[in-house]
Amino acid sequence: MAALDGLEQAVAEISAEMSGQTDRGKVADYIPQLGGVNPDQFGLAVVLADGRAICGGDADTAFSIQSISKVFTLTLALGKIGDSLWRRVGREPSGNPFNSIVQLEYEHGKPRNPFINAGALALADVILSGHRPREALGEILRFIRHVADDDGISIDQGVAISEQETGFRNAALANYMRSYAMLDNPVEFVLGVYFHHCAIAMSCRQLAMAARYLAFSGRHGPDGRTVISPERARRINAIMLTCGHYDGSGDFAFRVGIPGKSGVGGGILAVVPGRASVCVWSPGLDDNGNSRLGKIALERLSRRMGWSVFGA
Amino acid sequence: MAALDGLEQAVAEISAEMSGQTDRGKVADYIPQLGGVNPDQFGLAVVLADGRAICGGDADTAFSIQSISKVFTLTLALGKIGDSLWRRVGREPSGNPFNSIVQLEYEHGKPRNPFINAGALALADVILSGHRPREALGEILRFIRHVADDDGISIDQGVAISEQETGFRNAALANYMRSYAMLDNPVEFVLGVYFHHCAIAMSCRQLAMAARYLAFSGRHGPDGRTVISPERARRINAIMLTCGHYDGSGDFAFRVGIPGKSGVGGGILAVVPGRASVCVWSPGLDDNGNSRLGKIALERLSRRMGWSVFGA
Amino acid sequence: MAALDGLEQAVAEISAEMSGQTDRGKVADYIPQLGGVNPDQFGLAVVLADGRAICGGDADTAFSIQSISKVFTLTLALGKIGDSLWRRVGREPSGNPFNSIVQLEYEHGKPRNPFINAGALALADVILSGHRPREALGEILRFIRHVADDDGISIDQGVAISEQETGFRNAALANYMRSYAMLDNPVEFVLGVYFHHCAIAMSCRQLAMAARYLAFSGRHGPDGRTVISPERARRINAIMLTCGHYDGSGDFAFRVGIPGKSGVGGGILAVVPGRASVCVWSPGLDDNGNSRLGKIALERLSRRMGWSVFGA
Amino acid sequence: MAALDGLEQAVAEISAEMSGQTDRGKVADYIPQLGGVNPDQFGLAVVLADGRAICGGDADTAFSIQSISKVFTLTLALGKIGDSLWRRVGREPSGNPFNSIVQLEYEHGKPRNPFINAGALALADVILSGHRPREALGEILRFIRHVADDDGISIDQGVAISEQETGFRNAALANYMRSYAMLDNPVEFVLGVYFHHCAIAMSCRQLAMAARYLAFSGRHGPDGRTVISPERARRINAIMLTCGHYDGSGDFAFRVGIPGKSGVGGGILAVVPGRASVCVWSPGLDDNGNSRLGKIALERLSRRMGWSVFGA
Repeated sequence: MAALDGLEQAVAEISAEMSGQTDRGKVADYIPQLGGVNPDQFGLAVVLADGRAICGGDADTAFSIQSISKVFTLTLALGKIGDSLWRRVGREPSGNPFNSIVQLEYEHGKPRNPFINAGALALADVILSGHRPREALGEILRFIRHVADDDGISIDQGVAISEQETGFRNAALANYMRSYAMLDNPVEFVLGVYFHHCAIAMSCRQLAMAARYLAFSGRHGPDGRTVISPERARRINAIMLTCGHYDGSGDFAFRVGIPGKSGVGGGILAVVPGRASVCVWSPGLDDNGNSRLGKIALERLSRRMGWSVFGA
Repeated sequence: MAALDGLEQAVAEISAEMSGQTDRGKVADYIPQLGGVNPDQFGLAVVLADGRAICGGDADTAFSIQSISKVFTLTLALGKIGDSLWRRVGREPSGNPFNSIVQLEYEHGKPRNPFINAGALALADVILSGHRPREALGEILRFIRHVADDDGISIDQGVAISEQETGFRNAALANYMRSYAMLDNPVEFVLGVYFHHCAIAMSCRQLAMAARYLAFSGRHGPDGRTVISPERARRINAIMLTCGHYDGSGDFAFRVGIPGKSGVGGGILAVVPGRASVCVWSPGLDDNGNSRLGKIALERLSRRMGWSVFGA
Repeated sequence: MAALDGLEQAVAEISAEMSGQTDRGKVADYIPQLGGVNPDQFGLAVVLADGRAICGGDADTAFSIQSISKVFTLTLALGKIGDSLWRRVGREPSGNPFNSIVQLEYEHGKPRNPFINAGALALADVILSGHRPREALGEILRFIRHVADDDGISIDQGVAISEQETGFRNAALANYMRSYAMLDNPVEFVLGVYFHHCAIAMSCRQLAMAARYLAFSGRHGPDGRTVISPERARRINAIMLTCGHYDGSGDFAFRVGIPGKSGVGGGILAVVPGRASVCVWSPGLDDNGNSRLGKIALERLSRRMGWSVFGA
Repeated sequence: MAALDGLEQAVAEISAEMSGQTDRGKVADYIPQLGGVNPDQFGLAVVLADGRAICGGDADTAFSIQSISKVFTLTLALGKIGDSLWRRVGREPSGNPFNSIVQLEYEHGKPRNPFINAGALALADVILSGHRPREALGEILRFIRHVADDDGISIDQGVAISEQETGFRNAALANYMRSYAMLDNPVEFVLGVYFHHCAIAMSCRQLAMAARYLAFSGRHGPDGRTVISPERARRINAIMLTCGHYDGSGDFAFRVGIPGKSGVGGGILAVVPGRASVCVWSPGLDDNGNSRLGKIALERLSRRMGWSVFGA
């Protein structure tokens, strides 16, 4: 298959190119567990319609998925309450850094979209729906293990505890939303769920596998089991494209041209509708908090494969 | 051709459905020339790769293209100074209404993207580049007539003069940018060009024809003349998707799933990469200033034709 | 003494006038303990240089002093760390509601002045200085009992607990400041001290007695014991005048013309430098959260007595 | 007279102290006419109840009064339309720099107070009230000449023209207010009046003489002619204290403790109710745009003379 040959070559070459990069950005260091990660690592995994995974570099090294987890909690929250979710969180780009509290005040505690931190707290609140954090986290983990077809995925408790101990900004956001009655569950429950799902550890290969349902109309592959409806998959992809990279979402769409969601652990999950799910990882971040090499690698991959959703 | 039959039927049915809608939004009335437009009108035109136009409703009625013109001035400004344009204007969604001045203050006079009013003033300034307004407008008109293949397109002088007389908010934006040395030409020249290119009158058919270069990799059609490079076409489409509908851009991507640019005259220009360029028009606006029926019609068309860039 | 006769008559007449008012504002109701207070009450107490108290209405009824307590914690915090306090909190009017979090983000966690909620949290943090909340509260109570010459003053525990249970906005502010390393002590300690000192219950007479040191150059009276230096008393008065009534501070200066500090319990403490300390109380609030009748009463009293600091 | 001897000595000593200062701030240089002023100059003038002027340094050198003129236009605008002025402009401190446009957007074009630039444009609009700029300026000049008892006061046309040519920020503010229908007269008329009254040239002695009506209950002196009512004088003084120094108003009240109004020409006009009107001038500015030495000099004078309105 010519296309596949091209892809294997592209993945190999881009992985090699990235290993030679010297300007690798700055590793997130607000907790020791993230700050200690070796910045020289780079991984890339592409999963195709037939389920094959084309991998390069450190594609099997687990890392902290951080905000990438919001893609899965968004899917779960929509599964729980459907479109009534949009009464609790918007779906517009924010025009502000990921953890800004300014917008919350002007819009009375309703987060602009599900991918800024405040929005993800709203998702955690929906998933809790009166239960204990342990149960909500169990549900999130079960879902991710299911879509990734991998029961070995788990939470890095050290990361979770560290985030909880230093997460004052997120505690501010949660208390603020609660002051507007925009959270139903206790603030510490919501924060507990949030900090723990951000601390899930996965490899590029696992994440690319997990995201197949977004690339293939809601199914694990063209002939796979159904996870969500095709329309819901399209809509999640749309939100990833407009809001997936905080205040750098416009630039990602401009350069890479496919839906994606980044995390401060250095991972970026990306979706090529109808063709592939992709995950790239490199720990160093750019000024917007997105993986510096990850974005460059995806830009090259998208251009070489003609994968932009905006035209050939 | 089955696909084409499906499209002709879709255009006809959607046009019929829209004529029966009673909640048609609110016609922009800040100048008499716009306020007097009959809200019962609706037009739809789709231009395919082979140049054929499938039309419905009032597809040949000229209307004020308003902010849709920014797609063409963006193309021209990029043609003049290339990527150095991005030193003068950003490409991130704004998270604010189209005419907000708040963001300009926080970002020292650099507009967030080329489609908010401040950004379009920056484009007009680039196109002026030391010349007189008349010459800049001549260049804009020539470009639009060229891509639309129609020499009959012209400026509605009544609209232009009315906008100029009441355009205090835009005058504030231009003066504000000038105070940060973000405009090179006299404020009144920049405003003159801006008000006049917004006052160009075109029909749905003319606009859909004009936008072929965005749908077909920078060319007038798969075998047509080259207008811009394929990469530039992709990038303009990306900006349309993330920023094309002001504070409703996220919702448009969520519902319709294709790049588009709206204007307060009630038009929406949309691009289906590799397949079609589309224009819809209905004068009544929703709360975000986008055509109410236009958006509904495009949502239905995109769903029926499977045109979302975010998946089947 | 003619002046004193005039004052006694003014206090009596104004108290009578206020009892007849029908538009009494809206009692704060965010916790039951405040919402249940009878809005028909009105008290006024004026303490003169010789220590005599001229009282009217319900001047001996205890009420929740709320933000008036910030005057005393400011005095204590200045006593602890002197002018280095101004590295942790500003002294400019905020131009925002008392509990806005927007300003904190733009100024990186440093509150604009000590009388907005965020500023008062900074004061509580300074007073804690590594100790337990119980000790900090003991110090605050001892100071207030000392300046008021009254050992019967205490905290209303019901109010304190209720505030703590519903104080999400203040918890957001405290966590937010902590995220900028602008608090040294645990967030829950700072909040505990804050909620409890706001829940102190005092009467108009007690408060007017307590504030003598601000009216009389830092002493309990012209010949009384020294509490603070004359310069510090002037400076606290200056901050009361520019920042004492949240977003209504300018209007209070305009209408009443003397330094004052209001609380949502309906009290206003006011200072006439060299002449008198004053406290007025009526539970109903205006739109800015200041006692509606309290402000009217002070405006009348200031005008009748010629007490404005801005001229005869 | 002991007090007077003390004042003469204070004025002489402070003037001498200021001549030795090396850190004199930064002269405003946005127009050449201001940037070229010699920063080594310092003047001080105090006018007492009996009309005597105690002067030091360059008290008779004319300088550009700039925003100090807003005190006089506020007096005139109140004279024209009385308290209905407060429907067009607020009287709260702004919490923003003097030329911020952000607040205008959040408050729909109504300036926070008459001393920020937007507020002063509202005053100019009131004074115009349908007339030509020349007539409005004539009225302003006549008023200032009258209260200063000096027919030689005039506008520096070079300064006025330069300000007009570079005043894009003010043009933005005026257009913005007009877009909210908060200006009745043509934008260019309002700007013309504003730029010209800011360009009036006066000396410290002339300004101190002109401000007697604010110090002495609305009259030229205890026995002088009446200019405004005592209440209006008190109220203008109150606004000067809370809003007179832009984002440094709180600090001025804290340090100096008397009402004042600064201008970027380096002048500060100050009022000691019942005792004196004062003007100080030194061209170098601090970070808030207020005269650096002028503020220091006033702080020393106020402390030495016991002039703070906040206590002895």
